[in-house]
Amino acid sequence: MSSKDRCVKLYIIGLGLYLKQITLEALEILRDRCEKIFAEEYTSISSRGGIEDLEKIIGKKIIRVSRKDLEDLNGEILLKNLRENVNTCLITWGDPMTATTHVSIAKRAVEEGFCIRYVPGISSIHAALGFTGLMIYRLGKISTITFPKDNILSEYPYHVLRENMIRGLHTLYLLDIDVEKNIFMRTSDAVRILLELEERFRENLFNEKSFVLGIHIDEDTIICGGEAKFMLKDPLKEVPQILIVPSKLFVTEDEYIRSLGLKYDRCITIS
Amino acid sequence: MSSKDRCVKLYIIGLGLYLKQITLEALEILRDRCEKIFAEEYTSISSRGGIEDLEKIIGKKIIRVSRKDLEDLNGEILLKNLRENVNTCLITWGDPMTATTHVSIAKRAVEEGFCIRYVPGISSIHAALGFTGLMIYRLGKISTITFPKDNILSEYPYHVLRENMIRGLHTLYLLDIDVEKNIFMRTSDAVRILLELEERFRENLFNEKSFVLGIHIDEDTIICGGEAKFMLKDPLKEVPQILIVPSKLFVTEDEYIRSLGLKYDRCITIS
Repeated sequence: MSSKDRCVKLYIIGLGLYLKQITLEALEILRDRCEKIFAEEYTSISSRGGIEDLEKIIGKKIIRVSRKDLEDLNGEILLKNLRENVNTCLITWGDPMTATTHVSIAKRAVEEGFCIRYVPGISSIHAALGFTGLMIYRLGKISTITFPKDNILSEYPYHVLRENMIRGLHTLYLLDIDVEKNIFMRTSDAVRILLELEERFRENLFNEKSFVLGIHIDEDTIICGGEAKFMLKDPLKEVPQILIVPSKLFVTEDEYIRSLGLKYDRCITIS
Repeated sequence: MSSKDRCVKLYIIGLGLYLKQITLEALEILRDRCEKIFAEEYTSISSRGGIEDLEKIIGKKIIRVSRKDLEDLNGEILLKNLRENVNTCLITWGDPMTATTHVSIAKRAVEEGFCIRYVPGISSIHAALGFTGLMIYRLGKISTITFPKDNILSEYPYHVLRENMIRGLHTLYLLDIDVEKNIFMRTSDAVRILLELEERFRENLFNEKSFVLGIHIDEDTIICGGEAKFMLKDPLKEVPQILIVPSKLFVTEDEYIRSLGLKYDRCITIS
């Protein structure tokens, strides 16, 4: 047996945005190679089907880990298992490694001499572009809009919007989510925050007539499109959500969005 | 039965980067809902497992379509089937809808009154970031490096590099691929082209000592990291490949890349 074969391994596995989006590869690894499975659900959540359903499919118990376990305690619970020669899996909804926490834990595992294997899952960013027909070549820097903390509103999303708009690039916003605290920002909240930042900076980057898209990805994906004012009415109910502020649309993008009827204050379901 | 249920549907399905990366959702749709399946393999290719293997898994025949079918003939073959009330599937490796062609065909289908359903697949862009630990928040505009056409070399990749570097963002390059013509650009080719463009513009954006990462994603993913000069030696053999020119690395990114030993002219396999 080569040293590679004997390497105790940490698998960092993305499950996709809902249970059916899991890949055959992830399923196979969960079934055949994971001796202990830990699920992190505070940075993302499934739109449909949960950890209990996954437990039934793979016939194994899955242990929940909290933000405290992974961040404050640096994923020590995973490292402890690896040190006891247990092939250990960390699973999360969507795609892992987008979170700095996962990268830090992977680094720790490698530094202690363990092998790692990242298993990609469907990412909300990529899927949101696919559903709206926006070109990835025209995507600018990605940012997150968060609720004010200690009454301080992050101005960063506005700066990102400016930079992207100058370059004619679309801006995709991930929205504040903290499953442990039951916080799920909606596109209506995000639009309100962008309007507040516009009020503060007055650079005319964003107003009530700006064209925006809101998306909830699920087996029945819902896309709302129209003026920011429309999104303020909270037409998109389900969470988690993504907000896109497109720059000037390229002709194929514009035609596609028009064909879906999303140009003028409307929501559609793609199922 | 509602009108929605009766809607004849065009499914545009991503298979992921190799056969095992297919999602349960894609498999289920291929098995249960696709009455006719067309595969487009000229914009992307599987790293492992092909259309024949997929045919065996789902127990259905899959028809190949060419660039001519989809681009010159505007996907007429798909529309023809939809008009005959046949639920039709277009499958492709990786994620679809990144290609303008797929978006155009989806638009045509919607305009003719058919329903569409995009089914996301694992994208090489997202997976390349996950494997290298680079943060998606620090990713700049994406671009493609192509071989010279009629002796003219596109200067666009250099302009994208400039824009991204000014903003401190990483540049990810997809590399020229044309399966029908057996063209697969390698990271060594791409680095050579960037050096040639540097020679032309002399803005000191890129030189033989620039840090770059090359990735081939597969069940055994290979990552090479080091100076551009190292990549010129063609250490990464398998195709398709992606080239990343990172901007200044963030501390977690730098630590992760160092832990993998990728900082100084080395290739590793993650399996």
